[in-house]
Parts: sequence; structure tokens; C-alpha cells
Amino acid sequence: MAPALELLESPTEKLPVKAVSSIGNGAFSAANPRFESADTHQRVMNVFRAFIADVCQQYGEGHAGSPMGMAAIGIALYKYVMRYSPNNCDYFNRDRFVLSNGHACLWQYLFMHLAGVKSMTHEQLKTYHSSRLDSLCPGHPEIEHEGVEVTTGPLGQGLANAVGLAMATKNLAATYNRPGHELVNNMTWCMVGDACLQEGVGLEALSLAGHWKLNNLCVIFDNNSVTCDGSADVANTENINAKMRATGFNVMDVSNGDSDVIAVARALASARLSDRPTFLNIRTTIGFGSAKAGTADVHGAALGVDEVANFKRRFGLNPDEHFQIPEDVYSFFRDLPSRGEAHEAAWQVARLRYREDYPELAAEFALRAAGKMPEDWTKCIPRKEEQPTTPTASRKSAGVITNALGEGINSFLVGTADLTPSCNIAYKNKVDFQSPDLRTACGLNGNYSGRYIHYGIREHAMCAITNGLAAFNKGTFIPMTSTYLVFHLYAAAAIRMAALQGLQQIHIATHDSIGVGENGPTHQPIAVSALWRAMPNLLYIRPCDAEEVAGAYIAAIQATETPTVISLSRQNLTQYPQYSSREGAMKGGYVFTEGDGDDFDVTLIGVGSEMGYAMQTRELLLKEYDIKARVLSFPCTRLFEQQSREYKHSVLKPRAEKPTVVIEAYPSNGWERYADASVSMNRFGKSLPSKETYAHFGFAPESIAPKVKGLVEEVRRDGIGILRGDFRDFNGSLQVGLGH
Amino acid sequence: MAPALELLESPTEKLPVKAVSSIGNGAFSAANPRFESADTHQRVMNVFRAFIADVCQQYGEGHAGSPMGMAAIGIALYKYVMRYSPNNCDYFNRDRFVLSNGHACLWQYLFMHLAGVKSMTHEQLKTYHSSRLDSLCPGHPEIEHEGVEVTTGPLGQGLANAVGLAMATKNLAATYNRPGHELVNNMTWCMVGDACLQEGVGLEALSLAGHWKLNNLCVIFDNNSVTCDGSADVANTENINAKMRATGFNVMDVSNGDSDVIAVARALASARLSDRPTFLNIRTTIGFGSAKAGTADVHGAALGVDEVANFKRRFGLNPDEHFQIPEDVYSFFRDLPSRGEAHEAAWQVARLRYREDYPELAAEFALRAAGKMPEDWTKCIPRKEEQPTTPTASRKSAGVITNALGEGINSFLVGTADLTPSCNIAYKNKVDFQSPDLRTACGLNGNYSGRYIHYGIREHAMCAITNGLAAFNKGTFIPMTSTYLVFHLYAAAAIRMAALQGLQQIHIATHDSIGVGENGPTHQPIAVSALWRAMPNLLYIRPCDAEEVAGAYIAAIQATETPTVISLSRQNLTQYPQYSSREGAMKGGYVFTEGDGDDFDVTLIGVGSEMGYAMQTRELLLKEYDIKARVLSFPCTRLFEQQSREYKHSVLKPRAEKPTVVIEAYPSNGWERYADASVSMNRFGKSLPSKETYAHFGFAPESIAPKVKGLVEEVRRDGIGILRGDFRDFNGSLQVGLGH
Repeated sequence: MAPALELLESPTEKLPVKAVSSIGNGAFSAANPRFESADTHQRVMNVFRAFIADVCQQYGEGHAGSPMGMAAIGIALYKYVMRYSPNNCDYFNRDRFVLSNGHACLWQYLFMHLAGVKSMTHEQLKTYHSSRLDSLCPGHPEIEHEGVEVTTGPLGQGLANAVGLAMATKNLAATYNRPGHELVNNMTWCMVGDACLQEGVGLEALSLAGHWKLNNLCVIFDNNSVTCDGSADVANTENINAKMRATGFNVMDVSNGDSDVIAVARALASARLSDRPTFLNIRTTIGFGSAKAGTADVHGAALGVDEVANFKRRFGLNPDEHFQIPEDVYSFFRDLPSRGEAHEAAWQVARLRYREDYPELAAEFALRAAGKMPEDWTKCIPRKEEQPTTPTASRKSAGVITNALGEGINSFLVGTADLTPSCNIAYKNKVDFQSPDLRTACGLNGNYSGRYIHYGIREHAMCAITNGLAAFNKGTFIPMTSTYLVFHLYAAAAIRMAALQGLQQIHIATHDSIGVGENGPTHQPIAVSALWRAMPNLLYIRPCDAEEVAGAYIAAIQATETPTVISLSRQNLTQYPQYSSREGAMKGGYVFTEGDGDDFDVTLIGVGSEMGYAMQTRELLLKEYDIKARVLSFPCTRLFEQQSREYKHSVLKPRAEKPTVVIEAYPSNGWERYADASVSMNRFGKSLPSKETYAHFGFAPESIAPKVKGLVEEVRRDGIGILRGDFRDFNGSLQVGLGH
Repeated sequence: MAPALELLESPTEKLPVKAVSSIGNGAFSAANPRFESADTHQRVMNVFRAFIADVCQQYGEGHAGSPMGMAAIGIALYKYVMRYSPNNCDYFNRDRFVLSNGHACLWQYLFMHLAGVKSMTHEQLKTYHSSRLDSLCPGHPEIEHEGVEVTTGPLGQGLANAVGLAMATKNLAATYNRPGHELVNNMTWCMVGDACLQEGVGLEALSLAGHWKLNNLCVIFDNNSVTCDGSADVANTENINAKMRATGFNVMDVSNGDSDVIAVARALASARLSDRPTFLNIRTTIGFGSAKAGTADVHGAALGVDEVANFKRRFGLNPDEHFQIPEDVYSFFRDLPSRGEAHEAAWQVARLRYREDYPELAAEFALRAAGKMPEDWTKCIPRKEEQPTTPTASRKSAGVITNALGEGINSFLVGTADLTPSCNIAYKNKVDFQSPDLRTACGLNGNYSGRYIHYGIREHAMCAITNGLAAFNKGTFIPMTSTYLVFHLYAAAAIRMAALQGLQQIHIATHDSIGVGENGPTHQPIAVSALWRAMPNLLYIRPCDAEEVAGAYIAAIQATETPTVISLSRQNLTQYPQYSSREGAMKGGYVFTEGDGDDFDVTLIGVGSEMGYAMQTRELLLKEYDIKARVLSFPCTRLFEQQSREYKHSVLKPRAEKPTVVIEAYPSNGWERYADASVSMNRFGKSLPSKETYAHFGFAPESIAPKVKGLVEEVRRDGIGILRGDFRDFNGSLQVGLGH
């Protein structure tokens, strides 16, 4: 599957790029396949397309068009170009393949079957769109299944993931490869349709791939010029090749992508030798060979029984046979498992040789390849006695840990969407991840071994690329991102994909409250927390001081199948060394301080940067009204929900028949589970200095205490039962209209 | 402010574009200003920059760098090129100006002051970053304030808004202008920095502007080559001019944007005559004239007291004077108000002439210019007796209304992110919004009077452009978007901006539950609802049948300062003509059916496409366990919260001491306010056929009824009080880890 010398030396294919002598992204010449005849290719394509048509016809639905159109590309890739091992899809130095147009998944499933991936049986292929719970053929590719690198479907994501996968290779190669030792040198192939090149996340990621000169990335454009609404030119008439060149890509065209397997294979193979990432623009016909070929009608639909039969007749197949894969077609692919095994064996030999010459590096590499981190990461977390006691912004407390992790442990990649100065993430002696050729105007350069990543102002690509980094080999990297919490709304679709795929990563989200202040309502995140608290398999942790920040990082690092958002303040926060606890934070919610022993009138829940208001209100309640308040800290509702019922009750004390009030500058949604009333932000913020913003919206002990007093008195008078179904939003319920 | 003939005929400026004879985007020659001298310009810039430095120095913070760098651009724009009226910033046919790099807002505030906008006093300018509640100078521009077209700050949004503003002009011009009558012909100017050209939403919008040939749009790139992390080439090295040409723009360079006001003005003026949108690449120096000019240090900071003084000395100003605007500088701008009044007066004359020749069109235009819709929109909403009674997907029920509104009322713009076939939005005789020059491969063409918009696969730009359409003149357009609910996560940042700005629009979000089925977990929206339900000033309405769909549209159309998301099923839904009610839906939640008169054991809350499960469970409970359940329908929690406490209690009956169970295939977060237990989706979905997906996750009456029975019995035994602080997630609490 390595690019054959024959391919590379073909006189008919003039390489438009500078050859890179050093590595060539795995372009070794161990294998030297000869091309089969055009007739053979045509025969394989006919059978392939008929099978796709049959599968979609089973339930009269599914995506038939793209898979049929991409048949020739698949043969070129799976038979001639891609380096992989069907018997061990997880072999470390395999080429990565991403189907960014994930709706075309049948194409991938069928090629995996033909290539000999054992779990992908003939029987399994027919489970597409079935009610079989054990199907390996869901409607979009899923990372849980053998041979699938990332879950795709939401368009553009896979393309950005591929950029992350290519970065991962570059970083590992620069970190571990040594002269004569090519431990990591795989290519990343990414299939895209029109959509991935229209979506912003894809465009952002392409800019970065070009900037970083990721010459181990090849983007394969299935240019069928059709989208759901009609021909693609209904919504897009740009000059894509010129645009990609301007973005820093090596651009190649293949005009007959419907049939010319050899032309596709040669173009693909030459991508390994580019000095830049490659954009391969391949003209294809959606639903090739069917009556509705080249139209939107064949995008997300079966062909119809008659047309499936017609298709087969047209291409010399028996219309009465279904799901047929004749022996000659299997035989065409039969060499792939053994070739894959040879690739893997060669890599194992290389790894042994490497271990002899570089035992220490090899040990670290082995640990990371096994998905593990050095045990000594705990040294990066300050001990309680090392924590600050004077007011400190939690972004700063977090910065201490991020910097230690970034500086000390190769597994961590620390990135930012152009907020280095604000997010406190730049560590001493950081090396930027950059092309070694880059010479910037400000003198900030780097190389591929760098683990500090300037993503530019591209939050969505940052997070989607991060998914690729994390998916390269689970545990090899723990990527971190950083931006303001409000800008998570730019990246929400990507962070969701991390949660869905169980990709460990840490998102540092600073400026997480109305305390952002002067930047005003556009920058004051009001509803973002609600999204993260409701997202399955995601930890949203909002620590109240440095000690809880430590707990947040420990929880994030221990959550090996879960992304974590650590939500941090811009403004200084009072530290509570006598009350706060990392162990408590790791339980999600805990008793910060009891009332007067067991005696109390009300429970206040303080969260994150609003803990200060809870504690001050507690004092004022006692002083002014002789009301005894206990205070809970509640950095993470999700972690709290994982605790035992006994623990939860010991914290919440629901049977004490005393009211509970949550104080957080976010909407109250969801706090109704734990509280009877809220001091919350059910409207957008305002541009004011930090403290004044809080005061303006009713966050001051003088505003809160009388309301709490009123609630306590009401409960004393009428009993706790009256609060049932009557949640109190002290700051008003969620706004409708601008209310000027 | 119209481009002077002098500008256009300048022999030194060769126009690189084909002149458009017909309109020229307001390039009439009423005014013919001569340029002031370079010395005068320099003097104005010095004073301008010193003032910016003084304002930021007041509180030792703020964004000084970009405003100082953009001084020359501002003079060109405000003094020589832009057509506007300082005495009436809202005059309809004004050029629109968007500061997409919103952090540079001081620049806009100061130019508005100099141009004579009365509310923007000298005193007001000093309120930037102050604690003044009545400040008109927040940290980012806000639409509520005179002279600001859209709220900006989150980067890239303003650029997409500008595309929407330019579209609005094109559409109105094509709809109302007639030969000899130029009722609407304004330009849209959009200032951008590096970030707006990196953000995906900006890139998506630029592709569309090029595709649509919006030659009334000029994007002005403040190319200072610096971002927060350093020089911009740390994260971006693409060839922006080549990229913009490939995207369909007329590209022009200005090399000395720091000083050469005349070169900038000529380039700007020529943009009016382009046949394509213009991209003006102006080289500037961030923090021009200060010691840290050209570096990231001057991006988001004050210069420091000494450096402010040095700056003034350097440019011949008195370092001991602060906030000085000498008379000669005021005088430089003094003609602007009267020139603006002349523009407006000319337009009023044109409007009168138009009314004489086209009274009917003029009446419709007047209505829309007043922000009103024809009263007869109600004809587009089916009457109850016209609703279907057999199972119908709510996307289909919604389609009936969308189609009627789209076909019948010019205020509605119906758009889609390439999901025409899925979202049921294409109406009879629709005309696509397209450049009249476009000739697509599939034959689907259009013109600028079209109100059906193919946004391509660009959800984020769709929604951000929609904000521009809605902001053009509030009420003139009610734009609609359509995509799958899950893809709202791509567009969340833009939809939030609509809520923040009070922009009326309707987002049609189909495929809104796990009933999406085979497309699998990537397409099954689990947590999106939580975001929208927590977002201030947004209605998220999830109707259960066609009658509630009608209620959702009426609520959306009546919410003139609020965006609405209408959440719709892909799959067929049982219709409940005997129970459902549009009036109930408009109250957010209502009694669908009581138990046995007033007698009941449990309340079930059904929502959207899960109403069927609530109603079936009710039947089964009665039949199997003799348990009497009443059922509430709850399409919109926000609308429900607006109701009186009496109404809410009459629906929820919290004093009846009977448990309440919500049934919705979303996370339970927030339902704790109304319910004691949930049948919910606290994990991601699975690729299965629709019904099987529901069954797999416990949504079947046979699964639900026994759990409800258990709860009823528990409450009978132990009293309702035991449910306090003990919410029950019948389907498990929110997932952590993949749990395979």
C-alpha cells in the first residue's frame, strides 16, 4: 500500500511539488504493487456500486449516491495507496483515514469488508439502517468500531479532526524519531464532500493545515458538484483550487474520478512527497451509473427496485442477484491483509531497533502508545499548603497547573484561540508547534516538537482539531484548549463530538461570569453553562478558589473517557483555605461550612466566582437577622450526581425542611433539583466594571440577604411544602423581549 | 459623502472592476467634496489618536491599538465616503456601517462624536469603561444605541451581519425600485480585523457574498498584522488577497493606511462601482505613533501615562491637556450634519415621487419601513378544523405555515442550510435569492427579489446573516432559517446574538429528537434544548402536533423583539385534536387532559414528539394499575414562566401532593422545576430506526408505566415530602464515560 516506485516515477504524472527527501510520510518502497487492468477496476467498481444500491434498497433509504460516486477513489486508496493492516486496524503507525462526509459511510464499511477487516462481515454490511443493536454499520461512522478513526457526520468536523491527526503524527515524529529511526511517519487521508469545504470549521482547519505545512495530510475532495438543494453552484461558485492554493495547499486535479483508478492512485501517492498539505480535487458523479446520476435526488435515497435492477443490467450483473460479491472481486483485495501484516511487522522491527538505540525515549513512547501518562503528573498539582491565600483569579490558579503540566509532561498539548495573555497558559520554555520553516514578524517561531499551539482566532477548529489529537491513539495526548467561556458557543459542535466519542481533553474556559465586566454582554456568558451541564459525558467544573481548581484538574485528568471544561474567573476571588477542599470539589458538591453545628435556617449554594457572595450573605444573615446559613460549594453537578444517595442527602439535607438558595450568575435552569430559590442571571449582562456589574444585577449581600430572610420567614410560617412547584427566581425569571 | 466625481475620475486610481451603469450603489454626484490637505488630515489624526489614548488611560485599560491604527480609514469613511445623516442615524436609505472588530468601538464612538451625532457627547466618550449606567460607550458597540447597526464583539459575527445587511438592500431594491426610482440603494461598509477573516463564520459569509455578487458590500480589512498572541503570522500565513479573489471579491490594496486618507477614500469610493463585493486590504499599524506600535502589547491595553504624554509631544500636542478636541478639528467635520440632511431630504423627495408613480408598492414599502407586517398574515395559519387528524410529522405541519408565509408575505425570507428537501420549507413559485447572472448546473436560478435563500452548508453564517437581515430595519424582514436542531450547535453563537439584540426571526429546527433514527447519535440532539431553554430572550417551542405548531408560529410572529426556535419532528406524530390547543401552546404549558375529573394520582408532562408516549402511558396506567393520570403539554417553558402564578398552579397543581413525571427524550435539566421524576435521555443516542431508538432508551409505555406506578405507590406510602431533594431520573442520571 505504500506508494509504489512505479507510481512515483510515472512519466505521465509531473509532480507539482518539491520532494521532501527526509521522510516522505512513509513513502518507503517495501511494496511495489503493479496496477491491475482498467477492466478489472471497472469490474470491481460495478460490483461495489451494485452492492451499495442493494443495501440501500433493503429499507428503501440511506445514502447511496456518494458511495457509488467514490468507488474509484476507494479502490485507489484501499488497494494501492493507504498503509494499514486489516488484521490489526489499531496498529500504531497506520495511515489514518477520515471520512469527513460521514453519510457516505457505506463506502467505508464495504471497503473495510473487501480489505479483509474481520469484524466487518458480509452479514454486518446488511445491518445498515436495520434495527440490529449489534450493528457495526450505523448511519455515520463511529469511533467505537474497528477501523474507524473518528466519529463523523456533522459536516466539516472530520476534516478538522484529520488536521489534528496529522499534527499528532508530526509532533510524535519530531519528538521521538531519530536519524535512521522512523518510528512514526504515517499519512492522514481525509475524504471530504462539498459541505466540509463550505462549513466554517473546515475552512478554519484548512487555514491551519496550510499554515503548519502539514505535508502528511491529503484532503481528497469528492467533487460531485451536488448537494441536497441541487447542484452545488446553487450556493457556491468560488474557485476552490485557487482558494486552496492561497491557503497553502498543494493542489491537484483528477478529471475522471468515476473510473480512472490509476490516475487517482498516482495523485494520492504523490501527496506523500509534497512539501505542503495536498488538496486533491477529484471530479466524480454522485450515484454514478444510475438513472439519477449527477442529481440531488440520489444523495440521500435508495435508487428504487427497478433502477437497482437496471443498474445491474447496465453493468453486466445479474439483476436477480442481491448482495453479490463474486470471488474475483474478493480475490482483487486478497493481498491486503498480508501486506498490512508486513507493514506492521516492519514497524515492530523498527521499534525494537529504536528501543536498543534509545531506551529511555522508547520507554516513554511505549507508555504513551499504551495510552498512559507518567504517574508523576501529580507533582504538577500544588499541595493545599502551597495555595494562595490572598484574592486570586481562578484563571491564574489554573495557569499554575496548566503551566506545570505543559512544561513537564509530553502528553499535554496546550492550545489557545489567540488568548495567550488572557488565559494564563503560556509556560516557561514553551516551544510552539509550528513548521520549522516559519519565520514570524514578531520572532515567535517553533517546530513540530512544540506542544504550545496557536490556533488563531478559530475556536471551532481548535476544538475539532483537538478531537483529532485525542483520537490519534487514546491517551497518547491529552490536549488542552483555551478561550473565553462565551466563545465555547463557536465550538460547541466540536466539544459535543468529544463527549460523544469519549475523548479526554481539558478545555480551559476563562472569563466565565458577568465579572468579565467592561467587555459587556457579548462577552458575559449567560447560558453556556446550561449546555455543558446537560451534555452527556462532559464535566463542567466551576471551581470557587485555587484549591477547587486543583480538584478540577485532578478530576479532569482522571476522566480518561470524558472531556472536561474548567470554568474560570477573570477577576480575583477570595480564597477559602479553611473551607474549600479538592476532595470535595471532586465529589461535585460538598458542605463548605455548616451553620451553627447542625442547627441552621437556610442552605446557600455558592458556585465558582459567586462563592464570595454566598459567604458574605451568610455573614450578613447572621449579623442582621440572626439567621444561620450553611453553605455548600457546588463546582460540578455531574460529579455530584455520581455520588451515593446517602452522600447527596448528607450534603443537601432535604429532610431538614429548611429552604435552599443557589447563588450563581447564570440562569437558574437545573438548580431546581437542589434549591428552592435562586439569585441568578436570567437576562443578558451589561458593560460595567466587574463589581458594578454584579451589584447592578442584584449580586451583593445587601441585596441577597433580605430576600433570603423573606424566604426563611415564609417557610417558618407556612412550612417547606409551600415551595413545591413554586421555585423562586429572586432576580426575575428568564427574560423575553429586551425589556427596555 | 457620496463618492465625489473627483474621486472616481482620479487618473491615479485605475478601477480594477467593471463599472455597473445601472445603480452604482448610491454613487450619485449630489455632493462633490474636495479633499482637504494631507497636513489637515494629519492634524485630525493626531488629535484623534491622542483622544483615544486619553480615554483608555483614564482607567488604565481598554482597546487603544486598533482605534489608533484605523484613524485614517475613519476619516476617509466618515468625512468623504459614507452616506449617512448624523442628525438622523436611522434614516432608511443610509449606508450601513458595521464594526466587526467590535473591540475597536472607541474608534466608532469618537467618529460619531466628530461627525455630530448629538447623543454622543464629549462627556459620553469618557464613560467608556466607567461605572456609568447610562453610558452610550460600552466595551463593544450595542445596537440599542444611536448610530450602531448591530451589536458586535464576538469576532466574525459582524462580517456575516454585514452580508445580511447588503442582502437586505439588494432584496428591497429588486422588490421596490423601478426605472427612474432608486428607493433603496445604500452601501454596506464592514470593518474587519484579522480575527474576522480567521473565524469560520466570517469565511462562510464571505463565500456567500462572493457567490451572490453583493457589489454593495465593501469589506475593509484593517490589516495591522497583529493579534493577541503576537504578529498575525503566528497563526496565519495564507495569501488573503488571492483567497478573496478566489471567493469572488474585487480586491484592492492600500499600502499606507496609517496616513494616506485620500488613497483610502478613493479605494472606498471605487467600491461603489464594482460588479462584485469589494475587499479592501489596508495596511495599518496597530497603536500607530506610540512606542509599542505594531505589537500585540498595544492591542488590549492603555499606553501608560508617560507614553500618552510622549505620543502627544511626538505629534505636536500638549501633553498636559487631556481629551482635547480643538476647534479646527471639529470644524473639519462640521459639514457632515448638513450634508447628511441633504441626503435624507433628497431621499424623501425620491420617496414622494415614487409614491405618486407606484402608490401600491409605496404603501407596502411604507408599512415595512415602519417595521410592520401586513395584518393578513393570520390567513397563513390553518384554522383548527383544517388541521390533519392522521399521524403527521411536525416538520410537515410547520411546512404548511412556512410555505404560506413565504409565498404570501414579502416580509418573510425563508432560508435553509442545504436542507430544502428535509425541512419542508420550499413553497410554490418560490424565487431564489441569487445574482441574476447566475446560471446553475441544475437550472435553479433566481434574482435579488427572491426570498428563498440557499445558504449552502453554512449554518453559522446562515444565522449570523439572518441577524443582519433582521437588523437592517427592525420589522422590515422576518427572516427564517432551517436546519436540523443538532446543527444549531454550529450556529449557537449567532443565534445568541439575535437574542441579545432582540432581533425577531424564526428558526425552523427539524429532526429534533432521537426519532431521527438511523442517522444516529451524531444527529440526535440531546443537549441543545437545554441551551435554548436557558438563553435569555429566546423562545424554544416544541409543539406536539399540528395545532400546537400553529400556536408556535403565532407566538413567534407576535414576539417582535425575540428570536424563536420552532423544534420539529422528522417522524410522524399522533394528532390530538380533542386535547391540543394553539392557545394552550401560546401559554407555554397547559392541561392536555385531566385525570378522572379532578381526581388523579399522577401528572404526566408530555413534550413535543414524546407526547404520544405520555398519552399511551396514561392509558396503560389506567388499564393495568387503575392509576389515574392527567397529562400536561409543555411546548415552551419560557412562555409558561410568563404566566400568572395562579395559572401556573392551576396547571401544575403542586398542592395536590401527587407526583409529576416529565417524558422527554432530552436531559432532564430544568424540568425539576415542574416535575419530581423524568423519563429522559441523559446519554447520547444510537443509530436505529426511529421507534426502535425510542424503545431502546426506555421510551415505551410498557417501560414507563411500571416506573410511574412505583413512584405513585411510594408517594401514597411515604407522602409527597419524600421527593424533595430527590429527583428521580428513571432512565439514569447524566452519563459520565462511555459506559460500554
